[in-house]
Amino acid sequence: MAWPAPASIGMRLDEVDTPALIVELDAFEHNLRALMDAVRASGVRVRPHAKTHKCPDIARQQIALGAVGVCCQKVSEAEALVDGGIDDVLITNEIVGDPKVERLAALARRARIGVCVDHPLQVEQLARAAAALQAEVDVYVELDVGQERCGVADANDVMALVAQVQSHPPLRFAGLQAYHGRAQHLREPSERERAIAHAQKVVTDCLKEFAVAGIGVPRITGAGTGTYPLEAASGVWNELQPGSYIFMDADYGRNRLEPAAPRFRNSLHVLSTVISDAGGRLILDAGLKAFSVDSGLPQAPDAPGWQFAKASDEHGVLTPASAAPALPITVGTKLRLIPGHCDPTVNLHDWFVGMRGGVVETLWPITARGALF
Amino acid sequence: MAWPAPASIGMRLDEVDTPALIVELDAFEHNLRALMDAVRASGVRVRPHAKTHKCPDIARQQIALGAVGVCCQKVSEAEALVDGGIDDVLITNEIVGDPKVERLAALARRARIGVCVDHPLQVEQLARAAAALQAEVDVYVELDVGQERCGVADANDVMALVAQVQSHPPLRFAGLQAYHGRAQHLREPSERERAIAHAQKVVTDCLKEFAVAGIGVPRITGAGTGTYPLEAASGVWNELQPGSYIFMDADYGRNRLEPAAPRFRNSLHVLSTVISDAGGRLILDAGLKAFSVDSGLPQAPDAPGWQFAKASDEHGVLTPASAAPALPITVGTKLRLIPGHCDPTVNLHDWFVGMRGGVVETLWPITARGALF
Repeated sequence: MAWPAPASIGMRLDEVDTPALIVELDAFEHNLRALMDAVRASGVRVRPHAKTHKCPDIARQQIALGAVGVCCQKVSEAEALVDGGIDDVLITNEIVGDPKVERLAALARRARIGVCVDHPLQVEQLARAAAALQAEVDVYVELDVGQERCGVADANDVMALVAQVQSHPPLRFAGLQAYHGRAQHLREPSERERAIAHAQKVVTDCLKEFAVAGIGVPRITGAGTGTYPLEAASGVWNELQPGSYIFMDADYGRNRLEPAAPRFRNSLHVLSTVISDAGGRLILDAGLKAFSVDSGLPQAPDAPGWQFAKASDEHGVLTPASAAPALPITVGTKLRLIPGHCDPTVNLHDWFVGMRGGVVETLWPITARGALF
Repeated sequence: MAWPAPASIGMRLDEVDTPALIVELDAFEHNLRALMDAVRASGVRVRPHAKTHKCPDIARQQIALGAVGVCCQKVSEAEALVDGGIDDVLITNEIVGDPKVERLAALARRARIGVCVDHPLQVEQLARAAAALQAEVDVYVELDVGQERCGVADANDVMALVAQVQSHPPLRFAGLQAYHGRAQHLREPSERERAIAHAQKVVTDCLKEFAVAGIGVPRITGAGTGTYPLEAASGVWNELQPGSYIFMDADYGRNRLEPAAPRFRNSLHVLSTVISDAGGRLILDAGLKAFSVDSGLPQAPDAPGWQFAKASDEHGVLTPASAAPALPITVGTKLRLIPGHCDPTVNLHDWFVGMRGGVVETLWPITARGALF
């Protein structure tokens, strides 16, 4: 069920029903442009990750600014994006199971679809489905460049997978997926540099095998909001996949940045209402079902002197952080929260409420919310 | 958007698409009956908490076994339950804001609806909406019995709220909400006993004020899966609100139980698929968007010798816990996970897949999934 939007266009912030996901459009648009400006000189393609927003309206804005398409993680996300008018989607994930690969192949008849592999069974299932539907699919072999999740570590295994892909004509070997997710949240620039230097060595070692075999590698794709300047400058990656830069979150806010790196702004808030003021604590109507706490509790910028102390299923608890603050906050007051982690928070909501100058300007449905399959 | 169900009736477990929420019906029905059997002798009413399941199909089964109705936390949850045929719903939460209380009042014309208050503004908004719609609403004053969240701590404040409620005829003073949420997960029976003894003292002290004022208190309602035997035996509470007992979760599994307490069984799993087998780790297609980690990582009972090491947005990582296990688990294998915390996990899915004897017997839509407002 898609719930009704928590706002109408023209409302003021204090009229928006809560909990609601608020996008500050000035900050959001700054972020969209800042990324493209930062990488333009490198000539590297940008394919932003739509797992962050799950929203074709946002994907279209990214493409309008020069992105070549978007990424996502699930076939159902790709379906929602293609349904929303996006015609170039890379699933940066391994897809297993005949029902899923059959949907993927069907989708590849409607749009350009890429997918990652790291095991022969995935290629086999994909080849069967693609052949049955006469669908061409871009296939990327995923390298484990330090993420320690999916991905192939051994160059011989990589070459064997490429040979398997090339033996099935409906599948096109499109390149290498080389994403180092763990590196994104390393706090110090020097730590991120070391991690991406390692990733780069894994990729370049692998490229030597391709050179020996005489096989071209059209695309080296990867990178996220924490490290993309490094991949952009590497001369190795030719496509970047940042997602969180559009919103930022409390966790990314803890990264120290290189002096020259663009500053993305927090553009995403969860708007909540104070529903109880018990003296010494403020209780909000937003909890574990309105934001994700896997990367820490939200921040409450509208309540200086208070800290977000605890989240239960439907409640947040603010307690005084320092001297008793004298703020006009009581039952009925609406407070914005900066979520600890934007991606799984967005997945809890059906709508983005886009605001400018304190007024609701737009409502975007999060059509891939809950897209698990 | 409600996504298609991940299964069809008659499928075997290994045919169910993943990630999916699986309900083992034998264990689930055992839990439904075990709770009613455990409290029957006390004569105390049972009003299970539907925030756990968000599903009218399950609420109907609870009521068929003798529950008087259900609880929930949000007006939109109550709407979904009433739409699904449930005619007695208590919102165990404070509802603030005219749009919400107007919907609540409208709902109270279709079903018996209760709600909690702990502040005069809530009563004022509710009274205005109820009068405008000529809707009768049951109003419970919430006591802070140790939960340190919502609730009134001072008996004078309680009596003032009751007087305010009684001054507005469409509002009926229905009793006291006395729920000690923090007590539910105290690990030792003696800790839970102390916590509920404290809650009981808060309630009985308050009841003395009601006796002095000559005001009857029809209902004392509260309790959860961790403490309900204590409230049932107290002679004070006359209604119980357990929710998690139907599914249980890894966190509740860490509670030590009194010898005489019934053993509820884990009936809820997240079914996942191994999508990558990188040697030394298994990567699952279920992560932070398929289960909640606020109360710890899931358990993986189908992979003895492996431990759930890490969750990212769309992936789970299993690593060997002890000696290298020799199990037939590889890419394509489906594994069940016991979520750390059932309530926010259910909120990530659109369907329960009910299974018996390894075969899909029923599909229940989670119609209040994402009901935030």
